Amino acid sequence: MSVSSAQSAIPEDSVGLVQPQSTVLFQDSPLVLASGQTLGPITVAYETYGRLNEARDNGVFVCHALTGDAHAAGRHHADDPKPGWWDPLIGPGRGIDTNEYFVICANVLGGCQGTTGPGSINPQTGRRYNLSFPSLTVGDMVSVHSELVRSLGIERLCGVIGGSLGGMQVLDWAVRFPDQTAAAIVIASGHHLSAQGIAFNAVGRRAIYADPAFQGGSWDPESPPRFGLALARMIAHITYLSEDSIALKFGRRLQDSDQFAFDILKETEFRIESYLHHQGKRFVQRFDANSYLYLTRAMDYFDLARYSGSLAESCARASARFLVLSYDTDWLFPTSQSRELTSALLQAGKHVSFLELDCSFGHDSFLIDIDPLAEVIRPFLKQTRASEQRRAARTRTDSQ
Amino acid sequence: MSVSSAQSAIPEDSVGLVQPQSTVLFQDSPLVLASGQTLGPITVAYETYGRLNEARDNGVFVCHALTGDAHAAGRHHADDPKPGWWDPLIGPGRGIDTNEYFVICANVLGGCQGTTGPGSINPQTGRRYNLSFPSLTVGDMVSVHSELVRSLGIERLCGVIGGSLGGMQVLDWAVRFPDQTAAAIVIASGHHLSAQGIAFNAVGRRAIYADPAFQGGSWDPESPPRFGLALARMIAHITYLSEDSIALKFGRRLQDSDQFAFDILKETEFRIESYLHHQGKRFVQRFDANSYLYLTRAMDYFDLARYSGSLAESCARASARFLVLSYDTDWLFPTSQSRELTSALLQAGKHVSFLELDCSFGHDSFLIDIDPLAEVIRPFLKQTRASEQRRAARTRTDSQ
Repeated sequence: MSVSSAQSAIPEDSVGLVQPQSTVLFQDSPLVLASGQTLGPITVAYETYGRLNEARDNGVFVCHALTGDAHAAGRHHADDPKPGWWDPLIGPGRGIDTNEYFVICANVLGGCQGTTGPGSINPQTGRRYNLSFPSLTVGDMVSVHSELVRSLGIERLCGVIGGSLGGMQVLDWAVRFPDQTAAAIVIASGHHLSAQGIAFNAVGRRAIYADPAFQGGSWDPESPPRFGLALARMIAHITYLSEDSIALKFGRRLQDSDQFAFDILKETEFRIESYLHHQGKRFVQRFDANSYLYLTRAMDYFDLARYSGSLAESCARASARFLVLSYDTDWLFPTSQSRELTSALLQAGKHVSFLELDCSFGHDSFLIDIDPLAEVIRPFLKQTRASEQRRAARTRTDSQ
Repeated sequence: MSVSSAQSAIPEDSVGLVQPQSTVLFQDSPLVLASGQTLGPITVAYETYGRLNEARDNGVFVCHALTGDAHAAGRHHADDPKPGWWDPLIGPGRGIDTNEYFVICANVLGGCQGTTGPGSINPQTGRRYNLSFPSLTVGDMVSVHSELVRSLGIERLCGVIGGSLGGMQVLDWAVRFPDQTAAAIVIASGHHLSAQGIAFNAVGRRAIYADPAFQGGSWDPESPPRFGLALARMIAHITYLSEDSIALKFGRRLQDSDQFAFDILKETEFRIESYLHHQGKRFVQRFDANSYLYLTRAMDYFDLARYSGSLAESCARASARFLVLSYDTDWLFPTSQSRELTSALLQAGKHVSFLELDCSFGHDSFLIDIDPLAEVIRPFLKQTRASEQRRAARTRTDSQ
């Protein structure tokens, strides 16, 4: 296939070909992390879609989830088999309309897709950080995002948006940098991870620690702790799916036959087993085991109520308009969590919209079922811009 | 503490001191397993409580769950720190009243607490079976139970009862040996394991397979695959608890401090993590990794609908009175499963009682919250006996 015909296969409402970008922040003074440790310089991998307008008030920052990356939309090459992870939501005329908004997405601090993380070279030693990398929090990730936005010349974003760990970043951002965003869209997330969620993260990390290839985190990049990381992913993947979606997609169907193999070493007797093994294998090709440790731990640590005396007091610090979205089949971040958050935001007198969406895909719904998301996000962002313009007009009038 | 004072500490409604018993079955002709393979002789470890009456019609067989054993009630020694696993339910005047019933509990085939399993010595080789042990089904376990009951001189049991994997045994028993029991009590179980349940079993087994100490199942008994088995238990344990019970018991409380340690190698930052590690460590002291593989796989395989053309057709083969109990917070065997089973039993015209019990402990409720169980089981068994006596009277009248 020639490049031109491949390009013509990219739909018109796509952002099209995009360039990975990179910048180095915290060069002069390092970032002080929540742990008290410092880190710098920090390389940040990011992408942008659409154009920053003259008023510099149309920025929308997308926060990715646990194993996501900066490549949220478009394709890097005309013949890329797949576009960015949230491509159906981001583009000309799409839910986050790149004709209207300047969209930014950055790989998180501690990640492994271009932003400084445990797999990066420590400039002071010339070797990979590995587990000498400092412990991270969601707040630390957001501090880097926040600095990136300032470095792009944007004082105030129109909105920040994210699902799961991305939603935690949105909440942290709205509370710790209240002047930096007009809207906060929190999807399939919560003000903290439940004890059950911590438990699942813990067994995933245990799988990595127990892999002999782990070598105390100083594993050979040529032979990473594949078994441990794949198992961690397999465990986590179960929590991303709803029981109904597993039942519908795989049920109790066998992989190779309609008769049991009765072979105790056969690990892919059922289709669901084969699927999980496939997910595990794919994951180790793209993800760093040490990053997985740091990012899941940051997720465990996140607890908005700890920012102040209570959840409502933490929420009181924010000034953004909130949109809280949950899914009826999500059991990792159940709707009850979103209700608690919404209730605390209301108690704090904040502007908040809350909606539980019906979707059978469980926690992963926000990555799959895009149309219902787009239908809610589009008007919410539009109303936010209108509100911001009224606010700007009032400010101008006041200063006249 | 002297023995006599310890004995006096055993409550009066306990079965008191009990003797582990053992018998060897399938000596002359081996058991033909569902896989077509044969196995024999088979040693069966069992215990009995109460006395078999003259009519030999007061037997109640207790089927244990995945990692249970034959020691369901009483103490082996006066100074045993803990009684059998279902002790609060079984004893004089208790839910299963040993003044009335002769209670039998046996370790399952493939287990590791006295009944022949992969850790037993294969008489043909003089070495442990390990993975040369044949693949098992729930039906194979029940075939052994059934033979044990016959060997005790009991033609027809008053009831069989079990939770979780034990409930599957009860269902198999009622369908495959319909004349052998008058009642079938199925608790926190179902007619099959859900695809999600298979997924959790699969990741647990993966943890064992991936442990270098596993050695293809031929591990050294002095250095078993501890990490893998402990991790399998940790994963499974999460599914035994309800989200609410984890939240209530542990919440997000930290183990050693009220401040995060920010140490990426610390695996017990949160109390729930410490608890899971403790569960994992305790489990490897008492359980055989190979048994865990065989028993979880048998659980995956179980599917009552496969016994005939449909679930209702399988149920039609049974003749017992059924009592189906579920727990509102059990997400491994949710109430919806028990409803499906009850519906199929009704469709097949069977006598069935169904009750969803309220208990916050999730799947493990049947091992913890005994009083509500006892309140339902006591009258159900009593009614079954009355019904059996009427049946016997009718048979006598008919034959006069």
